[in-house]
Amino acid sequence: MPLVVVGSVAIDHVETPHARRENLLGGSATHFSYAASFFTKVRLVGVVGADWPPEHTELLASRNIDTAGLHQIESGKTFTWTGRYHDNMNDRDTLAVELNVFGEFDPVLPEDYRRAKYVFLANGVPAVQLKVLSQVPGRRLAVADTMDLWINTARSDLEKLLADLDGLVLNDSEAKLMTGTENLVAAGQQVREMGPKFVVIKKGEHGAMFFSEHETYVLPAYPTEKVVDPTGAGDSFAGGMMGYLSEQDNFEPATLKTAMAYGTLTASFNVEGFGLERMQEITRDAIEERMERYRQMLSF
Amino acid sequence: MPLVVVGSVAIDHVETPHARRENLLGGSATHFSYAASFFTKVRLVGVVGADWPPEHTELLASRNIDTAGLHQIESGKTFTWTGRYHDNMNDRDTLAVELNVFGEFDPVLPEDYRRAKYVFLANGVPAVQLKVLSQVPGRRLAVADTMDLWINTARSDLEKLLADLDGLVLNDSEAKLMTGTENLVAAGQQVREMGPKFVVIKKGEHGAMFFSEHETYVLPAYPTEKVVDPTGAGDSFAGGMMGYLSEQDNFEPATLKTAMAYGTLTASFNVEGFGLERMQEITRDAIEERMERYRQMLSF
Repeated sequence: MPLVVVGSVAIDHVETPHARRENLLGGSATHFSYAASFFTKVRLVGVVGADWPPEHTELLASRNIDTAGLHQIESGKTFTWTGRYHDNMNDRDTLAVELNVFGEFDPVLPEDYRRAKYVFLANGVPAVQLKVLSQVPGRRLAVADTMDLWINTARSDLEKLLADLDGLVLNDSEAKLMTGTENLVAAGQQVREMGPKFVVIKKGEHGAMFFSEHETYVLPAYPTEKVVDPTGAGDSFAGGMMGYLSEQDNFEPATLKTAMAYGTLTASFNVEGFGLERMQEITRDAIEERMERYRQMLSF
Repeated sequence: MPLVVVGSVAIDHVETPHARRENLLGGSATHFSYAASFFTKVRLVGVVGADWPPEHTELLASRNIDTAGLHQIESGKTFTWTGRYHDNMNDRDTLAVELNVFGEFDPVLPEDYRRAKYVFLANGVPAVQLKVLSQVPGRRLAVADTMDLWINTARSDLEKLLADLDGLVLNDSEAKLMTGTENLVAAGQQVREMGPKFVVIKKGEHGAMFFSEHETYVLPAYPTEKVVDPTGAGDSFAGGMMGYLSEQDNFEPATLKTAMAYGTLTASFNVEGFGLERMQEITRDAIEERMERYRQMLSF
């Protein structure tokens, strides 16, 4: 089943304690699309400016990602993000954000995208996420990501969104912020009670937690020494998860848990290189090999 | 196989955001012993003062824990620790420590303890831990815990200890401190290269990592909303792990991984009450039931 993703497409400049890289292909929807493309046909909705290098579009197209929904505005510039990671490769400072054309992003889905059954709303303004949902009335599964900014400044729209979602993906600090609860097990269930049928809390190097009415579980991250650039790890997680659900065309509890595991593994590859560099080196086979080791790791 | 543990026995005063409790039975060796007692015969070596309530010894004896090695010094007072947990129930401030008789702890193992095959050195002065090891020359498996204080102040003795150990258990911040490495996968392997055949890094609510020459894996914590008092969680983890290894009387890789899981679960019960209160309510059956759920959680 094709999977529609709507969200940011960006140019990233990233500095880590070990290196600095400029003009990386970045953005939530980009990392998501690339990870999901190992599993299913992805249709990407985003906006870029006149400075957008055509080779970035070519790279996405080479993964069979449909970029008909990637709108180019010749009078503007592409969203850029500049960040610096701390020694722990987990905390980071945002050094500069230029929203540019993404600041006015008003996604209009191409006609054939509107028949999508699987939809992912990457992190963005909740009011815009709601407008996207209204364009895919026949969807079977809609999942969204969010961030602290919207929890703090657009709570009312976010609550409307939650009521309309099947799933919400957010990170641990966001779940605590949204609920005022420090215990993540309690926080996850409280977010779920705000509307979505399931909630995934991403814990970075510590894995991810899943919450539905009848299930609460945790899967650890795949242990890796090689953390080169964590940018987009959460989006790659969501991409692997949603990609697998779309491929399987169901979201039964057992499928969801396997999807969580695939998300864990696509994220584990994503962090092994700057931007999408490591992802460009791998194949579905590499993901399956790692899955085999991951399953072994968790069996005793 | 009987399991000898040497370490602190204490009176704890604990404050959490929700409650305050005084005169709890505490100490590393105590939490360890209680958790291990669900699996094997435990022989406890420690020291207490004249103020030690006999009912604490009776409680341990009721779990068939051999307290012949628990030495009472009538001229002194028992080690006490007073701590306050932050809202996240993870960070804590030590408000007061009175080492008392534990400050002069010079463990002399009873004769029959010296034939032990399984030995655990709870957190303590590395020089003392080394002296204990020399008293059990015929041991098959010796595992120790340590802490930041010894990494900072007794590095040389600690390194001697590491060369003599089969396993080391420490927490994530201690592993980073010991190696100067922020990545826990790298840190764990670096600690292992300092001597022990295996290393376990405890990550609290995020689970535990295992490192041997041929294996690196992570098991998540058992997710629980009910975190009443985290004191002794790490010791309960080690107790469940070592108790199971002693019961099985082997430490093959597969047994070690199952032992890590049992440690995870004994710790998950320990945090559900103040001191040893929750542990006193459970049976081996309760641990096995939780193990069944834990295995299900990790299979997909």
